[in-house]
Amino acid sequence: MNVMNQQNPFPAAQNCDPAELGWMQGTPPAADKVIRFADGSGYRFPQLRWSFANQRQLVPTVTVSRGLAACAPMPVAARALPDIRYTPLDGGAPCSWADMMDATYTDALLVMHKGQVVFEHFGGVMGPLRQHIAMSVSKSFMGLLAACLVAEGALDEAQRVAHNVPELAGSGFGQATVRQVMDMTTGIDYTENYADPQAEIWNHMRAGGVLPCPPGYNGPGSFDAYLPTVRPLGEHGQQFTYRTANTDVLGWIVRRVTGQNTEQMLSERIWQPMGAELDAFYSVDPLGTAFAGGGLNTGLRDLARFGELVRNHGRVNGRQVLPEAAVADTLAGADPARFAANGPATLKGWSYRNMWWVSHNAHGAVMARGVHGQNIYIDPKAEMVIARYASHPVAANIANDVHTLPAYHAMALALLA
Amino acid sequence: MNVMNQQNPFPAAQNCDPAELGWMQGTPPAADKVIRFADGSGYRFPQLRWSFANQRQLVPTVTVSRGLAACAPMPVAARALPDIRYTPLDGGAPCSWADMMDATYTDALLVMHKGQVVFEHFGGVMGPLRQHIAMSVSKSFMGLLAACLVAEGALDEAQRVAHNVPELAGSGFGQATVRQVMDMTTGIDYTENYADPQAEIWNHMRAGGVLPCPPGYNGPGSFDAYLPTVRPLGEHGQQFTYRTANTDVLGWIVRRVTGQNTEQMLSERIWQPMGAELDAFYSVDPLGTAFAGGGLNTGLRDLARFGELVRNHGRVNGRQVLPEAAVADTLAGADPARFAANGPATLKGWSYRNMWWVSHNAHGAVMARGVHGQNIYIDPKAEMVIARYASHPVAANIANDVHTLPAYHAMALALLA
Repeated sequence: MNVMNQQNPFPAAQNCDPAELGWMQGTPPAADKVIRFADGSGYRFPQLRWSFANQRQLVPTVTVSRGLAACAPMPVAARALPDIRYTPLDGGAPCSWADMMDATYTDALLVMHKGQVVFEHFGGVMGPLRQHIAMSVSKSFMGLLAACLVAEGALDEAQRVAHNVPELAGSGFGQATVRQVMDMTTGIDYTENYADPQAEIWNHMRAGGVLPCPPGYNGPGSFDAYLPTVRPLGEHGQQFTYRTANTDVLGWIVRRVTGQNTEQMLSERIWQPMGAELDAFYSVDPLGTAFAGGGLNTGLRDLARFGELVRNHGRVNGRQVLPEAAVADTLAGADPARFAANGPATLKGWSYRNMWWVSHNAHGAVMARGVHGQNIYIDPKAEMVIARYASHPVAANIANDVHTLPAYHAMALALLA
Repeated sequence: MNVMNQQNPFPAAQNCDPAELGWMQGTPPAADKVIRFADGSGYRFPQLRWSFANQRQLVPTVTVSRGLAACAPMPVAARALPDIRYTPLDGGAPCSWADMMDATYTDALLVMHKGQVVFEHFGGVMGPLRQHIAMSVSKSFMGLLAACLVAEGALDEAQRVAHNVPELAGSGFGQATVRQVMDMTTGIDYTENYADPQAEIWNHMRAGGVLPCPPGYNGPGSFDAYLPTVRPLGEHGQQFTYRTANTDVLGWIVRRVTGQNTEQMLSERIWQPMGAELDAFYSVDPLGTAFAGGGLNTGLRDLARFGELVRNHGRVNGRQVLPEAAVADTLAGADPARFAANGPATLKGWSYRNMWWVSHNAHGAVMARGVHGQNIYIDPKAEMVIARYASHPVAANIANDVHTLPAYHAMALALLA
């Protein structure tokens, strides 16, 4: 059965607005309106429509500081958002931009064209002063930071993981190269099927404090304790397979190489130089290690600023902030032939490079993608960046892609016209 | 035995610098350098020298937003800090300003004179981009917010607590007036002796998620579940007795009256109008309720900005931000006769009003005070505000007062001269 053709069994977005449902409202909230980390309700639908914009209230976090300078201006464009129609990938009836927003449980959405805001929307419990969880969009920050170190010669992409992090020598990662980790072509015994309760992703999450541990849990108690337990499976460098463990290994490598925490590095290299308007934050494990694979939370506009930074080849107002080579390497993508076997059905012909999803389409579009609908979509040809936070009931992005991919491309074409 | 004359059994401040001790440094930190919420190590000395500036990494928190505007400037004065000598309250040898800083384990210190910065210091793991826990300095924010509501007529200080919060009708607070809560003259069966493991303060902290709960704990699981269990003892309105429960009751009253969370109210009424440069944050209980009694964390400069706001009668750059009557009522203090019996030995002749400590000295000095040495000291006559964060090994402020009170007053005299 093709997920693209499944009926959505969940209530429509407008019928599960988290503000209207009253989650965590009142002094105190009613017992049936409470969302707790400890009982896992923050990841249940419809509660996740509240918790995705309230992560710091549920888990320990660390700051990604914006510094003290004034934020970079985000001018509003004179032109209005074009009126578009698109055909969903499931072959359904043509839809509007508003249809896409509803169908994909959009919490916040921003469209930039030529560096100017053409559309901005905040819904549910999201707002301009609030950070939303970016989920695996977090990976694209870590991947690009690592690519910067490679471009600067501070990190050797051909080196074995064990060379940088000896603790991983006996694990499935030990003999993989840094590049294979960056492009997720490692051969490891680790599955990320969110529908399988036995998948390794769950042990990873529990170790990292992302999910509550069951009573009597005596497994690894941190990312750095979990990752060495991942076993090898298959050959490195053959095929892309999406596995979050790679990003936390990359985070460990980068911390070891730079001597900096992830949050410090992101603050100094990106958040401050790009003129972010809000601090961002990461959830952390019990040792204080940022969850590089999925724990970043940002304001919507700062997510868009980051997209603009990449679209502008690492420049902010003409100033080169990130090595141009690192951005160019990312935008160029990897070999689609190594992606096809395990890539999502909605991303035919794409590749994965530096933890970015690269379309190889005529517009050179690239994406950062996180479960439940978190997106950065960069269309260089249309000079368009879309930043989107969402709380779709289905984790797999394929459920969003049915609407978002054709809608984003239709918007790019309309802005180009 | 008089604590003022006790020998300090702890290492000197310069021998327990948290950065030099390496707490939570490394990828991952060494096992003996880990600080965890779960094992209570964040409140142990010397670990607390790290954890007081890293609270959000240990517990869930909520943001007190600074908004998006540029922060209010803090001009640096042309004049240098005067060179002062003071005699400690224990009769020891005369000390310098630097001696005071060392003797009281100062993490960060800022002195403002006539609205300009004459001294600023960050030490240990504290810095300009970091928030430090304010401990009971938090109370002075809540007390002043409540005083604003009283001044505006939105809160009736003569009303019984049970009128505003019916859930507290059967508790020791039920028949107390709002004013008695605001000035901590309630008669309740609640002790705050940090040296007594049976003191009610510990149940309060455990219920609020401030301290870890022992295995099998089945007591109250939130502030709002704990506070109704506090029993009456003695008469209301007779004597000041310092008890944190009053502040969380006041927080509940204020939330009920305004329909706003504490963090929203603080942001809208103080943090944004005063031009804070960093977001602040509160630790929260499992229901998301901010710990009004002690969970606020702020940057040093924003603590000083708040002191300046009070010194300027609620005005920022000439604009009235808080009702002048609320500030005047605070600065005027309460009746010292109701303070003498239970006030600290170092504060003879003082009183407690709107959760501020009022000296009634010739300068009209007032303080916000938190355990382990957190201070705002406002000297209206000298047009001086001191903001200080510290990690003194002894919780009781009396241990700091021996040095800080004479040093602050000597500084005021020197700035006046």
